[in-house]
Amino acid sequence: MTTPLTDLSPDQLAERLTALRAEYEELQAKGLKLDLTRGKPGADQLDLSEGLLRLPTGHQDAAGTDVRNYGGLDGLPELREIFADLLGLDASAIVVGGNSSLTMMYQVVTWMLLKGGPDSPRPWSQEPVVKFVCPVPGYDRHFTMLAELGIEMVTVPMNDDGPDVQAVRALVADDPAVKGLWLVPTYANPTGAVCSAEVAAELIAMPTAAPDFRILWDNAYAVHHLTDTETKSADALGLAAASGHPNRPIVFASTSKITFAGAGVAALAASAENRAWYLQRLGYASIGPDKINQLRHVEFFGDADGVRAHMRKHRDLIAPKFEAVDDALESRLGGLGIATWSKPTGGYFVNLDVLDGTASRVIQLAKEAGIALTPAGSAFPHGNDPHDRNIRLAPTFPALADVEAAMAGVALCAELAAAEKLAE
Amino acid sequence: MTTPLTDLSPDQLAERLTALRAEYEELQAKGLKLDLTRGKPGADQLDLSEGLLRLPTGHQDAAGTDVRNYGGLDGLPELREIFADLLGLDASAIVVGGNSSLTMMYQVVTWMLLKGGPDSPRPWSQEPVVKFVCPVPGYDRHFTMLAELGIEMVTVPMNDDGPDVQAVRALVADDPAVKGLWLVPTYANPTGAVCSAEVAAELIAMPTAAPDFRILWDNAYAVHHLTDTETKSADALGLAAASGHPNRPIVFASTSKITFAGAGVAALAASAENRAWYLQRLGYASIGPDKINQLRHVEFFGDADGVRAHMRKHRDLIAPKFEAVDDALESRLGGLGIATWSKPTGGYFVNLDVLDGTASRVIQLAKEAGIALTPAGSAFPHGNDPHDRNIRLAPTFPALADVEAAMAGVALCAELAAAEKLAE
Repeated sequence: MTTPLTDLSPDQLAERLTALRAEYEELQAKGLKLDLTRGKPGADQLDLSEGLLRLPTGHQDAAGTDVRNYGGLDGLPELREIFADLLGLDASAIVVGGNSSLTMMYQVVTWMLLKGGPDSPRPWSQEPVVKFVCPVPGYDRHFTMLAELGIEMVTVPMNDDGPDVQAVRALVADDPAVKGLWLVPTYANPTGAVCSAEVAAELIAMPTAAPDFRILWDNAYAVHHLTDTETKSADALGLAAASGHPNRPIVFASTSKITFAGAGVAALAASAENRAWYLQRLGYASIGPDKINQLRHVEFFGDADGVRAHMRKHRDLIAPKFEAVDDALESRLGGLGIATWSKPTGGYFVNLDVLDGTASRVIQLAKEAGIALTPAGSAFPHGNDPHDRNIRLAPTFPALADVEAAMAGVALCAELAAAEKLAE
Repeated sequence: MTTPLTDLSPDQLAERLTALRAEYEELQAKGLKLDLTRGKPGADQLDLSEGLLRLPTGHQDAAGTDVRNYGGLDGLPELREIFADLLGLDASAIVVGGNSSLTMMYQVVTWMLLKGGPDSPRPWSQEPVVKFVCPVPGYDRHFTMLAELGIEMVTVPMNDDGPDVQAVRALVADDPAVKGLWLVPTYANPTGAVCSAEVAAELIAMPTAAPDFRILWDNAYAVHHLTDTETKSADALGLAAASGHPNRPIVFASTSKITFAGAGVAALAASAENRAWYLQRLGYASIGPDKINQLRHVEFFGDADGVRAHMRKHRDLIAPKFEAVDDALESRLGGLGIATWSKPTGGYFVNLDVLDGTASRVIQLAKEAGIALTPAGSAFPHGNDPHDRNIRLAPTFPALADVEAAMAGVALCAELAAAEKLAE
């Protein structure tokens, strides 16, 4: 049995601290140069899509359109079919765009600001204040986008089954300034939580003071399973139509972590009214997406099952890295009572919560031992983790041996920082 | 000698009208289905870039970056070099993006609205009124973008050497609400005018009441020559730096009409301050452009001379179509005194000015004979051609024989509408 660090006597703790410091010096002496900061696919994952580089072999989509020329703002019909199948939606709801779903999210927010949505009393930029509900920990780029655009952020806890619904309800019911909610419904960044059908239904049906309340449903990891259990995402648009709030959710997805991270295709799905609104705005900014890249993806996958088979190859490459993270944390920190971490069944991250008040110190210690971690607080609006305990680990990009070496170091740093804190 | 239509006696005119109507009935009987509406490359032009579809052969740019992964917001260094050479600019000024320069223009305008530029007293959306100077006739998408974003448009004549500088000066000197000017400096859409170095220098140096005045320098046709005279664009950024208004021009270009219209690469060039401003905003909306498509273009062209050689192949295909337009207009309308038209040495359009008050009628007659022309007034803000005389002809997309057939019809319609008008 491991003794929790918090149960050690002052003498035992001092002894332990001395041992940990010696071990940390050895770690530093190794001169590591490792990086667990960004959710990027590894080169071996990118190699899975090499076939794309010799496609397409044809020039026309199923409707006979020459994909090399201008036009087709909503994207190739056959690619919309593939996304529809993967997301459990109707192809008529889908727009397929360029290489970034983040760009599509940004478009939606800026167009709500500049123009307002079909159900907005006025453009959001004409409201005195606009606020978004942000489940935390969450995706840093969601938060920095809102900060850039002057939108205030109010946080709610991200639970294992999705955002804390009671907390969300309390925020949105009476305040018409609360216009939106970020959600990564499946294998959330960074906790790996999957929003249950029940939570999804509540979020979509709950009363909101703002008539143009939006849930930006960033389903970035819809098909990014790490186990045999291929979790199905809640049907946001179906629930929305049934609840009488058809325009509330806007769904986003992409192949960024399916094919090439920088050169994939992104998709948006929404109600007919939202879709028409989006396409009208888009038409002032674009003459159409890169349809050649869309056809390239259609030829490469064939259909949605082609995507699913491809994702199992990704899983074979990255699941061992997630196991290595868990092994390193469990073997060193298990039973010490100073850390908890997620065991995600999909997605790209492991969420590590260390002893309160020590996350910054852990990240600093790791950095000084040559292990780059995401900056403290990056999973919170304005980088402010109120408990200074959250660390996002991204194990996909480094090689397996590097993940093992880095995580052994991270676990040591977490224990050392905790011992320092407890010895204060 | 042809007698001008205006010199005919009433009887002669009535006789001519009868003959024209008979001829028009014959035209209608042919059941044509031709389209001169959009500046799209023809399939034979797209075929010139087939080699792109088997590229890239490598994965890395010159700096060793894996182009398949995320990142690199400002684009591949070697592609920036190619654009720099073509545009006569320094590569450090250039950002290479996605498939659309229109999108980059839209980003600049919306970010000026939402955030303001580095030299803005406040975001443009917080000004009571924002106005742009629009040389006319001009590019319809420039105008519809401003209308969408609530920006007022004031027009000035587009002369053979660029916008009417005195008219521009008068508008911008005292009114701080006038924040910008659209300019297609080389082979303008639709007149084919080339902005002279003198006019460019005046536009860039002129006093403006707005400290954050912008010239959106849409150099879409910089290398799209139709003759041996390869006109060089004025050096907007060099002039701007020298004049003390470094942030005034923002230059745009793309390969949309060089490689594939929907799947090319676009570029923006600006002062260091503007570039930093643009990239900072862009970083909230994107994790980077499609670098694979950028490398694909680099491998395909090799260097700027590769682009120039490629453009000569385009010229071989489309110059005969422009000659066919001129031949059809000259042979029917020459000397009649009812129409003038441009003889562009580059770009994608012929500008036809028919008898005042007859453009809508010409377009209607053509439509009823199966020849689609751009809607009347489309080269003016809000579609309002005050003289109802301007027609934009786009001859690149149809086959040569179709251009000949369509233009014979257009010339007939122009004469018929004029005769109708004069007989009123």
